Amino acid sequence: MADLSELKQRYAEVHDLHMAAAVLQWDQEVLMPPKGAKGRGEQLSTLASLAHRLFTNADMGALIESEKSSAAPGTDDALAVEELAYDYERATRLPESFVAEFTEAQSAAYHAWVKAREGSDFALFKPHLERMVDLSRRKADYYGFEDSPYDALLEEYERGVTAAQLTPLFALLAERQKALVAAIAAAPAPDIAWLDQEWPVDAQWDFTMQVLRDLGYDFDAGRQDKSVHPFTTHFDVQDVRITTRVHPRELFSALTGSIHECGHALYEQGLRLEDRRTPLGYAIGLGIHESQSRLWENMIGRSRPFWEHYAPALRAAFPEKLDAIGVDELYRAVNAVQPSLIRVEADECTYNLHVVLRFEIEQALIEGTMRVEDVPEAWNAKMGEYLGLEVPDDAHGCLQDIHWSHGSLGYFPTYALGNLYAAQLMETIERDLPTLWDDIATGKFEPLLTWLREKVHRVGRRKRAPQLIEEITGTPPESAPFLRYLEQKYGELYGIDLSVSASADAMGG
Amino acid sequence: MADLSELKQRYAEVHDLHMAAAVLQWDQEVLMPPKGAKGRGEQLSTLASLAHRLFTNADMGALIESEKSSAAPGTDDALAVEELAYDYERATRLPESFVAEFTEAQSAAYHAWVKAREGSDFALFKPHLERMVDLSRRKADYYGFEDSPYDALLEEYERGVTAAQLTPLFALLAERQKALVAAIAAAPAPDIAWLDQEWPVDAQWDFTMQVLRDLGYDFDAGRQDKSVHPFTTHFDVQDVRITTRVHPRELFSALTGSIHECGHALYEQGLRLEDRRTPLGYAIGLGIHESQSRLWENMIGRSRPFWEHYAPALRAAFPEKLDAIGVDELYRAVNAVQPSLIRVEADECTYNLHVVLRFEIEQALIEGTMRVEDVPEAWNAKMGEYLGLEVPDDAHGCLQDIHWSHGSLGYFPTYALGNLYAAQLMETIERDLPTLWDDIATGKFEPLLTWLREKVHRVGRRKRAPQLIEEITGTPPESAPFLRYLEQKYGELYGIDLSVSASADAMGG
Repeated sequence: MADLSELKQRYAEVHDLHMAAAVLQWDQEVLMPPKGAKGRGEQLSTLASLAHRLFTNADMGALIESEKSSAAPGTDDALAVEELAYDYERATRLPESFVAEFTEAQSAAYHAWVKAREGSDFALFKPHLERMVDLSRRKADYYGFEDSPYDALLEEYERGVTAAQLTPLFALLAERQKALVAAIAAAPAPDIAWLDQEWPVDAQWDFTMQVLRDLGYDFDAGRQDKSVHPFTTHFDVQDVRITTRVHPRELFSALTGSIHECGHALYEQGLRLEDRRTPLGYAIGLGIHESQSRLWENMIGRSRPFWEHYAPALRAAFPEKLDAIGVDELYRAVNAVQPSLIRVEADECTYNLHVVLRFEIEQALIEGTMRVEDVPEAWNAKMGEYLGLEVPDDAHGCLQDIHWSHGSLGYFPTYALGNLYAAQLMETIERDLPTLWDDIATGKFEPLLTWLREKVHRVGRRKRAPQLIEEITGTPPESAPFLRYLEQKYGELYGIDLSVSASADAMGG
Repeated sequence: MADLSELKQRYAEVHDLHMAAAVLQWDQEVLMPPKGAKGRGEQLSTLASLAHRLFTNADMGALIESEKSSAAPGTDDALAVEELAYDYERATRLPESFVAEFTEAQSAAYHAWVKAREGSDFALFKPHLERMVDLSRRKADYYGFEDSPYDALLEEYERGVTAAQLTPLFALLAERQKALVAAIAAAPAPDIAWLDQEWPVDAQWDFTMQVLRDLGYDFDAGRQDKSVHPFTTHFDVQDVRITTRVHPRELFSALTGSIHECGHALYEQGLRLEDRRTPLGYAIGLGIHESQSRLWENMIGRSRPFWEHYAPALRAAFPEKLDAIGVDELYRAVNAVQPSLIRVEADECTYNLHVVLRFEIEQALIEGTMRVEDVPEAWNAKMGEYLGLEVPDDAHGCLQDIHWSHGSLGYFPTYALGNLYAAQLMETIERDLPTLWDDIATGKFEPLLTWLREKVHRVGRRKRAPQLIEEITGTPPESAPFLRYLEQKYGELYGIDLSVSASADAMGG
């Protein structure tokens, strides 16, 4: 018991250092004056290296070993020690010299990427991406894997999911979403010319704040600010912050962005208070995290009942501008489908296609079946195949995302998994909460939030994502519910018939 | 050399932890949602304890010892090692158990003080103040002292200054400022009834921002925000932030507060870039710091030339409200003298009297010649003696300041020293910059800032305050220049004759 409390105390210290770093990063993105960058970089580097040093200390390993055998099985303490042992093993598998090399390469790659994207010059980024692929493969070797080195990278973002499981899920998504997008392209487009006008930014801001309050975001345990790239961060279960950006000529961008971040934030605010500063007090992984943001943003925030409720408030927020616009027009406009070159601007129907493209390229790079120099060509070919678009330059193609410059290979699939999980959860929610859509149509979000709190948020890190999804929905992660959702919603919206019976595409256990 | 770079690296890490803590504290005061308090407290405590552990590590002592003998005398490296050795010795003199006891007592005392002040109930705070006095005396014993245990406490805030030096300085201040206040009370008061109206807060804010820019505050290396208690903090010489508060019915409060904090911030922004993360890259101490804030707030921001320059801009900021108000009226209003019970609201003529009162009580408590239970009576008697005021209750008396609840005995004198230093510096500045007041009257602040940068800011921690003041002004810290300044300015303002030749009150070497 003395050892356990020592272990908890040490873990809590490491946690505090990470949370302190998160505050410094938040400040850096939201408020920091430009000249503060140098000092801030040093401070963040010191916090990260201290956290790593404290966590990978040999004493820590000994304490974990001793507790592994003594914590009562099945208790939260035993689970916590298990999770800690997992993290400790991962952290100590990477030699310190490798971590330093990786960090240095990240910094160089990031700066090269910024320049390469600015000038749309892939050649500038190529040697850095080669280095990142090489380092990622070495990282996979350090971590170890069974089938594919890509699995070792996936593990970092979505524990317990492998490339072999993703391949059939993503193949089905690609096939059916491609067909859906083609059908929509052939259907008459909604009239959204009225969207192209000024939407005063203060009114937009106030409207998003009201929606956040309505959805259940606790402003006593968080705040919304503005930043160039919207994000969610947390320093504690009781201090979870989101950011948004407001464009004067876009009616829905700040709102849907805020709802997306709110989905992330509701998850973090919904973790158990009693798990604070323990290994269980974290989200499961990125896929489940994204399921929460997508569920709120798309399945709720882009639903017809949501707009039945909010149409009057939106009209009041923008006097006279929306007098001629009914619920149907709002619903159509917020769900307009338009294939585009840029992932972060993609709609529900095309988003996963952007992810599948990246997954296929990453996997080939890591497994050694594609060379870095062939990435632009492969990218552009896939954009043509999946979205029917021609890529004018690499800035609008393979240089658009920051992830590879950070060496975050294996991250993209979690975005699509989030969509799949969200749809699976939603089918169960609709069964569990028969009045869900009536509630949404009257602005009552609390039953939904309570369901998510109980089934998902409060679990913390007690389960893996595939296990949680199967326990809640009765099925392992699969594509069918998401495709059913898309095809029904957009079939109706665009007046096309796409009802195809779901294939057997469940993720193999 | 290897040792020196190791020593510098370790020092830089400790520095980074302190700076990270400062970011967390700033956020706590300015933005943090209320429920974040618990987690934030834990994070701050972890950062403080890690910084202490890293700094007082035995390795650190060995490295310092080895460098003490090897750094070339007179170089910045040698000075840095000297300063480090000083800090290390101070830090290691306090046993860890004592530090923990002190921290715990602070927290309890703070909460008791908040309640005691709310209910104006000294009895609630009394046992905590007794504990703080006891702990402070023990702290003095750990640190060691020659004459008075109070010297060991003063050392923490104003190194190299003793109670024996302060006593004659403060006695003279008390005598002459008391006389000045009495004379002003007998003179006709200026008509400031026009101040009592609404001063739109946005216009106040914009005006303070413009003044900050004019004075030379670098907004690329800092920012101004709002907080309940205005303060200045720094995370780096290139990230120095200030806060202010804006009252809708007070024209000068936000402005003079901003100028005050700006004086602190200009000092921090003026430290040498090359001293970053070294023991030399800090302000000398609190007295010199306060001299910078007071010099800008009072000697510049409450001068007639300053208002000659800013009167038109102020009139433009508050259309029609100031049409009948000339420079003289503004100058009189911003310098209105009104003895009050509360230190933080005190004007230039009465401020030091509040400090002298606290110094006398603190010294008596620490030297054991006054009991804590006698504090309220002593306080009230001195308020009558120095300011002619009757104290209605302890909330407006000995419970008004936070300092004692933090155990910060020995801190108050630095406020008065700041006034004295500022006046001494200003007499030298007026000699060195013959066009100073013409410059100020035309909004040209750069020559003054350059002078302060060269003579004061860039010194960093290379000197002690009394030494710096003597080197710059030719005289050790003394009361005469401040009294000359006060008596001349307020003699003119109130039409009274107070010219008394300065007594020989220099601080003994």
